[in-house]
Amino acid sequence: MMITDDAFPVEPWQVRETELRIDLLPQSESLFALSNGHIGFRGNLDEGEPYGLPGTYLNGFYEVRPLPYAEAGFGYPEDGQSIVDVTNGKLIRLLVEDEPFDVRYGELLSHERVLDMRAGTLSRSAEWCSPAGKQIRINSTRLVSLAHRGLAAIEYEVEACHDVRITLQSELVANEDQPPPSDDPRVAAALNQPLEAVQHEVAERGALLIHRTRGSGLMVAAAMDHVVEGPGRVDISGDAGPDWARTTVVCGLKTGERLRIVKYLAYGWSSLRSRPALRDQAAAAIASARYSGWDGLLDAQRAYLDDYWDTADVEVDGDPDCQQAVRFGLFHVLQASARAEQRAIAGKGLTGTGYDGHAFWDTEGFVLPVLTYTAPRAAADALRWRASTLDLARDRARELDLAGASFPWRTIRGEECSAYWPAGTAAFHINADIAMAFERYRVVTGDDSIEKECGLAVLVETARMWRSLGHHDRYGAWRIDGVTGPDEYTAVVRDNVFTNLMAAANLRVAADACARHPDAAAELDVDTEEIAAWRDAADAVHIPYDEDLGVHPQCEGFTTLREWDFRDNTEYPLLLHEPYVRLYPAQVVKQADLVLAMQWQSHAFTAEQKARNVDYYERRTTRDSSLSACTQAVMCAEVGHLELAHDYAYEAALIDLRNLHHNTGDGLHLASLAGTWTALVAGFGGLRDDERVLALDPQLPCGINRLRFRLCWRNFRVTIDADHQHVTYTLRDGPHSKLKIRHAGRILEISTDAPTKVEVCEREPLLPTPKQPPGREPFRRSRVRSDSQA
Amino acid sequence: MMITDDAFPVEPWQVRETELRIDLLPQSESLFALSNGHIGFRGNLDEGEPYGLPGTYLNGFYEVRPLPYAEAGFGYPEDGQSIVDVTNGKLIRLLVEDEPFDVRYGELLSHERVLDMRAGTLSRSAEWCSPAGKQIRINSTRLVSLAHRGLAAIEYEVEACHDVRITLQSELVANEDQPPPSDDPRVAAALNQPLEAVQHEVAERGALLIHRTRGSGLMVAAAMDHVVEGPGRVDISGDAGPDWARTTVVCGLKTGERLRIVKYLAYGWSSLRSRPALRDQAAAAIASARYSGWDGLLDAQRAYLDDYWDTADVEVDGDPDCQQAVRFGLFHVLQASARAEQRAIAGKGLTGTGYDGHAFWDTEGFVLPVLTYTAPRAAADALRWRASTLDLARDRARELDLAGASFPWRTIRGEECSAYWPAGTAAFHINADIAMAFERYRVVTGDDSIEKECGLAVLVETARMWRSLGHHDRYGAWRIDGVTGPDEYTAVVRDNVFTNLMAAANLRVAADACARHPDAAAELDVDTEEIAAWRDAADAVHIPYDEDLGVHPQCEGFTTLREWDFRDNTEYPLLLHEPYVRLYPAQVVKQADLVLAMQWQSHAFTAEQKARNVDYYERRTTRDSSLSACTQAVMCAEVGHLELAHDYAYEAALIDLRNLHHNTGDGLHLASLAGTWTALVAGFGGLRDDERVLALDPQLPCGINRLRFRLCWRNFRVTIDADHQHVTYTLRDGPHSKLKIRHAGRILEISTDAPTKVEVCEREPLLPTPKQPPGREPFRRSRVRSDSQA
Repeated sequence: MMITDDAFPVEPWQVRETELRIDLLPQSESLFALSNGHIGFRGNLDEGEPYGLPGTYLNGFYEVRPLPYAEAGFGYPEDGQSIVDVTNGKLIRLLVEDEPFDVRYGELLSHERVLDMRAGTLSRSAEWCSPAGKQIRINSTRLVSLAHRGLAAIEYEVEACHDVRITLQSELVANEDQPPPSDDPRVAAALNQPLEAVQHEVAERGALLIHRTRGSGLMVAAAMDHVVEGPGRVDISGDAGPDWARTTVVCGLKTGERLRIVKYLAYGWSSLRSRPALRDQAAAAIASARYSGWDGLLDAQRAYLDDYWDTADVEVDGDPDCQQAVRFGLFHVLQASARAEQRAIAGKGLTGTGYDGHAFWDTEGFVLPVLTYTAPRAAADALRWRASTLDLARDRARELDLAGASFPWRTIRGEECSAYWPAGTAAFHINADIAMAFERYRVVTGDDSIEKECGLAVLVETARMWRSLGHHDRYGAWRIDGVTGPDEYTAVVRDNVFTNLMAAANLRVAADACARHPDAAAELDVDTEEIAAWRDAADAVHIPYDEDLGVHPQCEGFTTLREWDFRDNTEYPLLLHEPYVRLYPAQVVKQADLVLAMQWQSHAFTAEQKARNVDYYERRTTRDSSLSACTQAVMCAEVGHLELAHDYAYEAALIDLRNLHHNTGDGLHLASLAGTWTALVAGFGGLRDDERVLALDPQLPCGINRLRFRLCWRNFRVTIDADHQHVTYTLRDGPHSKLKIRHAGRILEISTDAPTKVEVCEREPLLPTPKQPPGREPFRRSRVRSDSQA
Repeated sequence: MMITDDAFPVEPWQVRETELRIDLLPQSESLFALSNGHIGFRGNLDEGEPYGLPGTYLNGFYEVRPLPYAEAGFGYPEDGQSIVDVTNGKLIRLLVEDEPFDVRYGELLSHERVLDMRAGTLSRSAEWCSPAGKQIRINSTRLVSLAHRGLAAIEYEVEACHDVRITLQSELVANEDQPPPSDDPRVAAALNQPLEAVQHEVAERGALLIHRTRGSGLMVAAAMDHVVEGPGRVDISGDAGPDWARTTVVCGLKTGERLRIVKYLAYGWSSLRSRPALRDQAAAAIASARYSGWDGLLDAQRAYLDDYWDTADVEVDGDPDCQQAVRFGLFHVLQASARAEQRAIAGKGLTGTGYDGHAFWDTEGFVLPVLTYTAPRAAADALRWRASTLDLARDRARELDLAGASFPWRTIRGEECSAYWPAGTAAFHINADIAMAFERYRVVTGDDSIEKECGLAVLVETARMWRSLGHHDRYGAWRIDGVTGPDEYTAVVRDNVFTNLMAAANLRVAADACARHPDAAAELDVDTEEIAAWRDAADAVHIPYDEDLGVHPQCEGFTTLREWDFRDNTEYPLLLHEPYVRLYPAQVVKQADLVLAMQWQSHAFTAEQKARNVDYYERRTTRDSSLSACTQAVMCAEVGHLELAHDYAYEAALIDLRNLHHNTGDGLHLASLAGTWTALVAGFGGLRDDERVLALDPQLPCGINRLRFRLCWRNFRVTIDADHQHVTYTLRDGPHSKLKIRHAGRILEISTDAPTKVEVCEREPLLPTPKQPPGREPFRRSRVRSDSQA
């Protein structure tokens, strides 16, 4: 179901749905999800139904389930972890006289929802005429507090257009019914009634429910409290059962009168703490919310976001789609991470159950680069989460007969949950992706406290893993066999260039970190011989190159594999229509792999190699993964295909706002949303940091007049303001400080005293703009817009 | 649990258990299994318990079960097929006075079981003293008729040593309790109560039960009837329920008196025929059995086997273990196939539920070579079965986006049942193994009726599959990528030498067959261009070769993979202790792969290449598959390591008689049992046929004084009688006929008029005897014998 501009107009600071599209409910619930990284609310309607997927999530709160194998194998994980739809506190049911407000009945005269990215709220206004002809207006506003981690709140107001009796039922409901499960492997496993009731309590204006998972043994408390304002007599009462609690408000409204309630919601969960402790934690959060009051919560929310936008905003003149989308992406990246505080940032954040709520390499590879430059504290917390799973990764390495630590391909709590090892365990590159995220954090922020605190052990243990996974062949080349790179259509290969380069970087970074922290390294039993062995392997790493074609094969032999028949196989994503046994040995690429290597390890390729490689892989890449378009945008921009890059940036940006991958309903594609920033900032801004210098090289496509973005670098904030001729670099947070950056390959010193204006360095493409496989051209901005206007 | 010579002495024509070993019950039930290829009885005790695994099987009678995947993938089979333990008719319970005869109670004074490979019977004699002190003798003999496909029979005799009352309950029991399931992926899935009762009938001296499977919709009828002889008053009565039927015989015996019953058993099953038709079929078989009588059945059984041994026997002077074992192997190969009549020959025959009762490439690759030379009619029937599944293989090819037909890696009825594609679907070599089995049959028997009847279509469709799976690279080499060869520890590889050579042979054989049958080929839409394309691909096939080492890498790049650490990993089979992700990219070999290529495509390798390759792979092969030792025996013999070859022959031969792989209890290793013949005949006899000539080249190891074996070739039977100096070739089935064979590489004409005696051509090994990985030396004959004597 495509989302069009009619339903969701392009506006710079908000996402607005102009009328209720029931067919788009799964998608709009994801788009309108609110989260602070700890609590996640899908944008379900206040009254609970109709719904696409009911969803209330707590980061790290999962249930285990057995992973079945028709043919077992050693080392296959036995248990999966699945995100749980916890107690739903969003529910506010409304009866108008004796008829429940349900948009499917009566007449919906108007309905608008607005996600306000500066206010951090989802608001809704509706006019409804009941089947009996009674008309009302509803205004509700919902927030998940960025300032107070355990809190959410809803303001709900009903205005009568006739004299009516109004009944509100504000609820907590556990074990909500779920839609039937799907066959698509990218969708979650169905969890049926995952919560076991522990306790329910009713108070005068609220209630509390405590539940527990059966397998993972986690306990969750959800509490609600209400402020009620209404004219005349207002009756408030409460009742509850094991899986539900209800506060009922009844009053009579005369025409023009309003009933307003504010619902405070508190959530807490723990694997350790007692039932009374959780109960008190929820009660304390409620008390704190009452102390702030609704306006106080709104103010704190906006203040948090004002600060964020001041640090992170990207302005895209001339391209309103990308303007809206990059803010939408940054907003959701912040929502997924702001208060995650040493919990994972899942592939879909807390916006849906897609991929079972698991975190993948998306976190370190796609989300953390953005957070490191825009919200470094959140990046540090995400790194701390990963480091907290190191012991589990050590266990996994031992199971795999490897040294050091091997991090899971997909997980919630840290155990490997991937049940298909060729696109799971074999994707060892995640270890280097994690290691390099620690290094990027250190380089960009200049803060090496995280390295000291927990990063060094991660670097050392991943280096050890690589050293035991790779080997020197009898010609002295250091090779890594039997691994899967980012491209999951060519798996279990020899010498994947991406993996080999990242592994070598991981080894070098670990060696350097040990030199910085010799005592801590010694505690990890690292000696000079071990460090030397890391450096030797890194220096001898084998990078296959096809001399005849002048391109890098993505892995050994790739360029002599069978060419894929793109004319005969036209149903995408291919993974749902073609067997792996046919995909793997063909020159068909799911997602940027060698091309991603050229972004992340930019210094390892010449400009000519980059141009030729882009040209080769563009023709063979299907972008069946949402992680691809942003990378293709960056590298197409670098080699001078600026218009193609702009198309890819658009595709990465609009993936969810226009449901381009047809599965936004399962949750947002957080990596692609983060990739919007990357496409603009690394693509058209030319940002690179793989040589530990802030390197920029802006050049804009025709459709963008001006690009203005901000970065944190060391103790500075840097603003980059580029148009087609000039770039202005502004260094903030002085006084009288200077910073050496690289502009278009040359060192440039910028100062807090005054902006520095330089000329754009125009890139001429070495090769003509490449073609993509038939039917896999990027979504053209022009086409999508005209379609939607038709 | 090792089986020793004490419990099972080495005797030339029988397998005898000298005392009842309850700890060895699972193994002895497999060893003592009786079958005619249609009905299979495990060697369970007459009284039903104790048991290792109760088993009564009908070839082709299976139930479907869903194959679960924690992560689904396109083209994964959704349904598995599992062999069903059908109605057990072997049961004869005995009460001595009021106490049931159970070997675990009272006192077992003696117990002996004998599998007689000339009589085709399993007999048992026991003396037992009941807890109350009443002593009896029991003699029973069981046969599954080779002459009458639907029949089995049991003679059961009780002799009283005191005056006692005897009660016999002869039964049919459906849905027997099964032992708890295992985690070992090589074991079957558990089927619980797979049979649904349809009908039960009681007659004067017998009964009938009809059941049906729920998923696969198959119906089975089992009937029994009895002849009873006893002194004095003998009461006979019958009763039955949905899942059981019983004939009860009561009589009083004085000391020295005997009660004898003969139980006739008839089985029939169908997916199509009606309940009355099945009932009548069983009744007719019973009537026929009564007409033959017990002695008639015994005589027919022996006559069938006399004829078989006259054609097939192998005499091994000087090595009584191998002598017994090769006959044991031939006996079970015959049992698995004799009356299979267009049903599969499963990997474990009808001796157990291991591998779910599936047929693999074992059939065409290991069993059919033996049958083709020793029981060609059974071989023809097995080929007809495979051809009968061609349409399913066409469907599977279409699903895999391939032309032609792709046969399943494992199946009962023809649908792919492999749930792990890297060691299933990717093992495309099974298609060439099947094609070459058709070709071998044609070459060896001189009968091209099977090719006309059904083989041509198989050859054409497999050739088409290969042509679409492989591709020419830009240098003109024809390559096959992403496939798994015989070695399942190095999977999804490029240019597996075995696969490429077999595929090329498949293509050439298909081309030649089309030339022989131009009209039939035209009906299959084969034209000269297609045939030319097959020949072109075959001629351009890429066979990787490592010039530096002078060996063939088993697949592209194999010889530069990491060496496996055999010192650190010492738990075998490795697949139960190491993850695939580590096994695949290392130089560790589960089973002969390149070495098998050198046996089956002998002409494609020089003598020096063979010697070097054997040397290289011996050092890296774990023999974790039971399909390996026989091949290693053959190739070690060819390159002159005759003593090592003898050890491997011993290991292949004794795999089940000595439970060398510790899973004989799940069923016999039919391919390895067939491989005993192959080790002796192709190893020490030097039999090859890959150049369409009967080629022989006997040379014996020290421990075998004389090897005498028989082969069918065209319309002849040939006897080869070799000692250390001479070989005598005798051509039977004259008169006055001649045959050109190859002896030690030279053409030799032999005649029905007189035997031809020539000298053995001694082979000098080019290289010293190779070492195996530590701990993976073959089971030494000397060691095992001395252990068992200790």
